[in-house]
Amino acid sequence: MPFIVSKTATNRRNEPIDMNGDHVYRASTTAPVNIAVIKYWGKRDPRLNLPTNSSLSVTLSQSDLRTHTTASCSPSFSPPDTLLLNAQPQPLSDARSQACLTSLRALRSALESTDPSLPPLSSYPLRLSSANNFPTAAGLASSAAGFAALVRAIADLYQLPQSPTELSLIARQGSGSACRSLLGGYVAWDQGTLLDGTDSKARLVAPRSHWPEMRALILVVSAEKKGVSSTTGMQTTVQTSPMFQTRATQVVPRAMREMETAIAGKDFPGFAKITMRESNSFHATCLDTDPPIFYLNDVSRAAIKGVEAVNEKAGRIAAAYTFDAGPNCVVYYLEEDGDVVAGAFKTVLGEKEGWTGEQGKAVKGAEGVLQGKVMETLRDGVSRVILTSVGEGPISVGDHLIDEKGEVVV
Amino acid sequence: MPFIVSKTATNRRNEPIDMNGDHVYRASTTAPVNIAVIKYWGKRDPRLNLPTNSSLSVTLSQSDLRTHTTASCSPSFSPPDTLLLNAQPQPLSDARSQACLTSLRALRSALESTDPSLPPLSSYPLRLSSANNFPTAAGLASSAAGFAALVRAIADLYQLPQSPTELSLIARQGSGSACRSLLGGYVAWDQGTLLDGTDSKARLVAPRSHWPEMRALILVVSAEKKGVSSTTGMQTTVQTSPMFQTRATQVVPRAMREMETAIAGKDFPGFAKITMRESNSFHATCLDTDPPIFYLNDVSRAAIKGVEAVNEKAGRIAAAYTFDAGPNCVVYYLEEDGDVVAGAFKTVLGEKEGWTGEQGKAVKGAEGVLQGKVMETLRDGVSRVILTSVGEGPISVGDHLIDEKGEVVV
Repeated sequence: MPFIVSKTATNRRNEPIDMNGDHVYRASTTAPVNIAVIKYWGKRDPRLNLPTNSSLSVTLSQSDLRTHTTASCSPSFSPPDTLLLNAQPQPLSDARSQACLTSLRALRSALESTDPSLPPLSSYPLRLSSANNFPTAAGLASSAAGFAALVRAIADLYQLPQSPTELSLIARQGSGSACRSLLGGYVAWDQGTLLDGTDSKARLVAPRSHWPEMRALILVVSAEKKGVSSTTGMQTTVQTSPMFQTRATQVVPRAMREMETAIAGKDFPGFAKITMRESNSFHATCLDTDPPIFYLNDVSRAAIKGVEAVNEKAGRIAAAYTFDAGPNCVVYYLEEDGDVVAGAFKTVLGEKEGWTGEQGKAVKGAEGVLQGKVMETLRDGVSRVILTSVGEGPISVGDHLIDEKGEVVV
Repeated sequence: MPFIVSKTATNRRNEPIDMNGDHVYRASTTAPVNIAVIKYWGKRDPRLNLPTNSSLSVTLSQSDLRTHTTASCSPSFSPPDTLLLNAQPQPLSDARSQACLTSLRALRSALESTDPSLPPLSSYPLRLSSANNFPTAAGLASSAAGFAALVRAIADLYQLPQSPTELSLIARQGSGSACRSLLGGYVAWDQGTLLDGTDSKARLVAPRSHWPEMRALILVVSAEKKGVSSTTGMQTTVQTSPMFQTRATQVVPRAMREMETAIAGKDFPGFAKITMRESNSFHATCLDTDPPIFYLNDVSRAAIKGVEAVNEKAGRIAAAYTFDAGPNCVVYYLEEDGDVVAGAFKTVLGEKEGWTGEQGKAVKGAEGVLQGKVMETLRDGVSRVILTSVGEGPISVGDHLIDEKGEVVV
């Protein structure tokens, strides 16, 4: 009879009791989305997901955006390993997923070989189940949270002693930016120089508690399907953009230094300037790619004009825009500027979904900041907003998506 | 009594008969628009309009796009010098216009001092009148044709012996790209290295007759007012874009060499590839500017997708897009591909103004090449088309916009 493994949010480690051979071992975690302010674009090693430049992101609150994953294993499970996302079967046989599973199993196997009393979990088939608390259709990069949750959940299941930074080496092989979702707050991914990638990992620049006032307003843009996947796109950029090398070797290293200084000093204007320039630099190299890659559309441009209008109205830099490989705009601002920044957008987009939460309700509208064509384009093109803030790294939870019998809970 | 100076298209020189002191001397010319395939963006000397990189353009046919200018002078005219464009007074006191007028007068004055029998035209007030045969609202860069026509007309009025390349040094000071409109066919503007700019001038790469099959389809996009003037924009790019230097010092010099080879060999795929990459490189540095400059909009992007669809359908590179500092798309193609390229756009845009001329009527539609969102966006966003081709340099004409009494003909 399988044993119910219960976990609490404060107890990261799975502690199964090995009663008999068909026990189901479980561990669950939630992991955050991160939005880079210095962008990852270009791989020096596509197999190992080693980047051509370092990057830096803000981890966002899991209250608003998170992947919840339960990892389970049991001698009673039939191979192969399986993964469900929102109850739909997902491939696990791809090289990226396999790289993660193989690495995690190897770490567990090493533990088992030093302590023969440990149950041989590394030999059991894995059953994984994940769910996102945000709409997949929103076009938010979910692979970062997804792979971070997968790696963290299995590491907890296997009771691995590795640190989040060490685990980031594994998550990186699943999805590059996933390595940054193993940590909360302000997180760098140092590109590293070693051929085997063992120095290409996440590093805590500052915890959430250092600068907890950071807020993010995400303008979700109703986009057509994404034209170019980021994996394909970034390699085409590396191969064809003559200006890309300048970005990778000169622009980003300088931006990394300046951004770490800005975060250390809680210098929002500095943070904002680098963030906006970085986003533009990244999208410029996309445009310099052959054939050109466009992620920004007219709605994205209206969002940029909107942020510029907010800053002009404020007479200082109160807001920063950034765009990943898609048209959604992420606007960073400080809590104290909620009305000045989010308020300007609320006045125009107040009818859209996303303002009913605590953070959204607290925002007081700011009339007349966004006007004319910018206002119209945003109203026509933004489908919903998400209000969130800087948040913590993965959190171990007792709420399992797989029950004690190994069945997926829908 | 003023004397009517009649001129023919084959007789460039003004030959006034000096009957008495109130003669009106006149010369008229038309000058072409040129559309760069290697873009001018950035000045190393803003006053002298010396560029940070060389550029190269195709001169377009004056049957479709031209500025017509009459230059006149007379001792009977009252100062100051005047200019009318489409019968509306235009400023002539600006530094750029004055640089042109001063240089041309100096050349005339030098002639007069070597031959005292010449009438002292350099001392007479100038009366200039210009008209464009294309709508100003079309957002087509008219300053190139405008300054080329102004310089050519006054040079003819003054019977200056200078070559078009020598005159291009003067036109350059009016508007950088105007220097290329002094010549027909395929024209380079060599950036030069001298501080005084005397080696920064137009050069004939190949006459129209070398490759007369080049055609251009201009998709005129209904744009909001231009956000950033090119003069302001290019200087902001030079000052703020970290990737701009790479473009100016590495990307463009290579593109110039390759483009001259492609033109010499009448290699359209080569010409097209460089043209598209160059346009994207230029707009990438605009995006890399702080604050970012956007000239391309969703309609421009649909035009790019349209050209990509045409080339995919053809299974070869039959069309090339390029964009100046605005959303209009210029599509280059060869005469033999009229149906393949212009036909694909005619099927979608056949109801728009611009297809009723000889070239447009000859185009046979190509069904189904442009589809879905691209088709819809082009239909919604393109206001008219212009069909044209590679053309000749300025042409001296006998049709004057100022009558024998010095009155402007409306």
